Amino acid sequence: MIDITMGSNVSLYQQIYEQLKNKIISGELEEGTRLTSTRALAKNLCVARNTVESSYAQLCVEGYVSSKPGSGYYVMNVADDSLFTDLAPPMEKSSEKVRAVARVESAEYTHDFQFYNLEHASFPFALWRRLSAEALASFDARKICFYNDKQGEPDLRAEITKYVRDSRGVRCTPDQVVLCCGTQHALDVICTLFHDGNRKVAVEEPGYDGAKIIFKKNDFEILSIPVGPEGIDLDELERTSTQLTYITPSHQFPTGVVMPIHKRVQLLQWATKRDGIIIEDDYDSEFRYHTRPIPSLHSTDTNGRVIYKGTFSKSLSPGLRMSYIILPEWLLPKYHTIFAGYNATISWFQQKIISLYMERGHWERHIRKVCLHNKKKHDTLIKAIHEQLGDRVRIHGNNAGLHFLLEFVQGEKQEWLIEKAREHKVRVYPTLPYWHRKERCRENFILMGFSMLSEKEIVEGIALLKKAWFEQQ
Amino acid sequence: MIDITMGSNVSLYQQIYEQLKNKIISGELEEGTRLTSTRALAKNLCVARNTVESSYAQLCVEGYVSSKPGSGYYVMNVADDSLFTDLAPPMEKSSEKVRAVARVESAEYTHDFQFYNLEHASFPFALWRRLSAEALASFDARKICFYNDKQGEPDLRAEITKYVRDSRGVRCTPDQVVLCCGTQHALDVICTLFHDGNRKVAVEEPGYDGAKIIFKKNDFEILSIPVGPEGIDLDELERTSTQLTYITPSHQFPTGVVMPIHKRVQLLQWATKRDGIIIEDDYDSEFRYHTRPIPSLHSTDTNGRVIYKGTFSKSLSPGLRMSYIILPEWLLPKYHTIFAGYNATISWFQQKIISLYMERGHWERHIRKVCLHNKKKHDTLIKAIHEQLGDRVRIHGNNAGLHFLLEFVQGEKQEWLIEKAREHKVRVYPTLPYWHRKERCRENFILMGFSMLSEKEIVEGIALLKKAWFEQQ
Repeated sequence: MIDITMGSNVSLYQQIYEQLKNKIISGELEEGTRLTSTRALAKNLCVARNTVESSYAQLCVEGYVSSKPGSGYYVMNVADDSLFTDLAPPMEKSSEKVRAVARVESAEYTHDFQFYNLEHASFPFALWRRLSAEALASFDARKICFYNDKQGEPDLRAEITKYVRDSRGVRCTPDQVVLCCGTQHALDVICTLFHDGNRKVAVEEPGYDGAKIIFKKNDFEILSIPVGPEGIDLDELERTSTQLTYITPSHQFPTGVVMPIHKRVQLLQWATKRDGIIIEDDYDSEFRYHTRPIPSLHSTDTNGRVIYKGTFSKSLSPGLRMSYIILPEWLLPKYHTIFAGYNATISWFQQKIISLYMERGHWERHIRKVCLHNKKKHDTLIKAIHEQLGDRVRIHGNNAGLHFLLEFVQGEKQEWLIEKAREHKVRVYPTLPYWHRKERCRENFILMGFSMLSEKEIVEGIALLKKAWFEQQ
Repeated sequence: MIDITMGSNVSLYQQIYEQLKNKIISGELEEGTRLTSTRALAKNLCVARNTVESSYAQLCVEGYVSSKPGSGYYVMNVADDSLFTDLAPPMEKSSEKVRAVARVESAEYTHDFQFYNLEHASFPFALWRRLSAEALASFDARKICFYNDKQGEPDLRAEITKYVRDSRGVRCTPDQVVLCCGTQHALDVICTLFHDGNRKVAVEEPGYDGAKIIFKKNDFEILSIPVGPEGIDLDELERTSTQLTYITPSHQFPTGVVMPIHKRVQLLQWATKRDGIIIEDDYDSEFRYHTRPIPSLHSTDTNGRVIYKGTFSKSLSPGLRMSYIILPEWLLPKYHTIFAGYNATISWFQQKIISLYMERGHWERHIRKVCLHNKKKHDTLIKAIHEQLGDRVRIHGNNAGLHFLLEFVQGEKQEWLIEKAREHKVRVYPTLPYWHRKERCRENFILMGFSMLSEKEIVEGIALLKKAWFEQQ
């Protein structure tokens, strides 16, 4: 039984999603139960059918239900419900337009399917200028001459606290936030905190190479755990003696896999039992295009086992060099002891600008705009691939983020694919760097992103790739 | 025989200093030779006596000659002359005025003799706003959306190269410069570079505590080497098995001692023989008030044994979080291998602003202004101490930087001194934190700085301290 309130602040989609999720968590809807069909529920509630479909799709991508084609949606096993906390409502999208896109020239490539740098047309230059002037004229400006709080400015930490609560369901206080100059610095801080442990860390295989470098730098032994269709293999994790694991549960890098809710619950149980810590790298969670964002692992954690890591690099600008971690409360005394003699790492000026930017609501609007813009590019790219490359390729990990994997069904190898593309001045990327044990890498995959190309360039680029890969002998 | 050219671009002071220094280095003036008296030389050259006195004082502070009261100046042993390179001329000071000074309120203290935060009145706010706008409007501005060069922006590195050459005699190319977000990050980079070594580092005792934390974090064993009147004890250094040493040769922190030239030569010889590396932390070399700045150790190094570290924290703003290291050329391939997967740590925006600031000559003018301003405050403070505290105290390490040590001849202890001052709402600082082996700390010393107080406040503060320490029973 679902009750909906018309004209409420909470969207119909949201009401249906929340009530069904709560029924599943509470056990009212048991494992294996078939949900009312979308058509029937829409009729009962007098709402549009695609509203119900959106709610079901979201439950599906988060692992609460599974869809059997031609049969319907069934409730999944979500295990220990005591771990659940209320989730904040995900952010809504707007239909604001994004400015036209410019492109950076590169001698070697005309079309670069990269996934890390952003289009500069998306950056709010004029606003940044205004806020810079305002920051320098503020009373606070005297702090530009001080060694400031090593955790970051309190105002900015308060803004981040609000943002992660509203968008990612992360509940914390500003005291738990530590600002860092990039993901690598964030991981370095975490390594320093666990310097006294057994210095082993489980990482995803394949996984983000930039993270492994930092663990190695800190003399951590790296245990690579295979990633399957539901994220890292928890049985293999169980067999290791590590207490620390580093994962990207909401959009695994680079495979794009989402860890479903029953696996998340198991992972949290592992951490509780093992007195372990899970580093959740939520690097591009803002960008999910055909369902709502997936709540963070942190939002499901009631035992303080998760260190959440967010970044401004994917949604605003990597050139700002700014990320943040959210430490569990019990870890704060240790943090303050170990970091007592440390200085801040981020310029006061930049912190102040971003703080004003968030405080005034620009950040939220920016995310909506950029998400919509990225969705268009994403959909254009997927469509172009289907039309041009057809069933010679399979797409893995799409509908989210700024990249996905392309599998070549006839077994073409990444080295050849990259070289052929290069001959046509198109750049695509290998997956090999993300494998710790290189021999495990499946070579008929490449990595493609769309963070720097316009829709027009995307279509052109795929046409060139078709030529490069399938039309020359 | 000294030849001087009247009306030359090079000041008379400079001409006398350079020629005498070269004669000492070349051996023309042998160890033990008594220099012509200042009076006689002034008469011979037809210049003012205080011009000659300044030249002699500079040679003295750099360790080329020593002064015997009532007897004159004698040439010191400067050992292996093959190590010398030409030194760039030190910067000249101007008489520009510095704006009036404002003070930050603090509930507990009315007068804070600290040495780390700067007066915000010295920061060029209006200019910063203009340059921020210019940076955002520049063609380069697209780089705000990129992951940029991990070493820092090439333009800024080129500006730093020019600055360290002209002001500190450091010869390098922009390829050797690595920008870091503070001294601690700089030392972390260096530790990462020598991660494969024996992980021992010699540090000064007493010395900068913020550095030791980073060595410890990187599992380096810390060997503390006592600092005498000529810097660290080279015999003790010789007895260790370390290849790495971290020192502040031009203004030792916190004692203010200057390492004289013969010791510098010995230290460089130690490094060459041992295949060692000297980290030269040149943190406040801009500020030397009654002699010219002391050339860097790097400028005397011909074998690539010195990693030079500079910072923007002391002369411009600690809130910018920006420092830099200059790596020897032979170390660059190793740097590029180890740091291949690392990202930059400083915001592009900030790098661009500072790059414009230096390029336009503002930085050089700023240094002159601030140096003059600091000299006035320094002299006021020294005078006030002499007048108010008389011979109950001795000042160590003055005429440079932003701090010095105060010794209490009757053996008052720092804990008591700090507490008494606090009762009068004046803050002075302990020396204990800078001792690795706390039992070695001489307790009748305190640390005092003048980075945040105006001249008026300095005079008031010292009067309060007199009351606190010597007028109450």
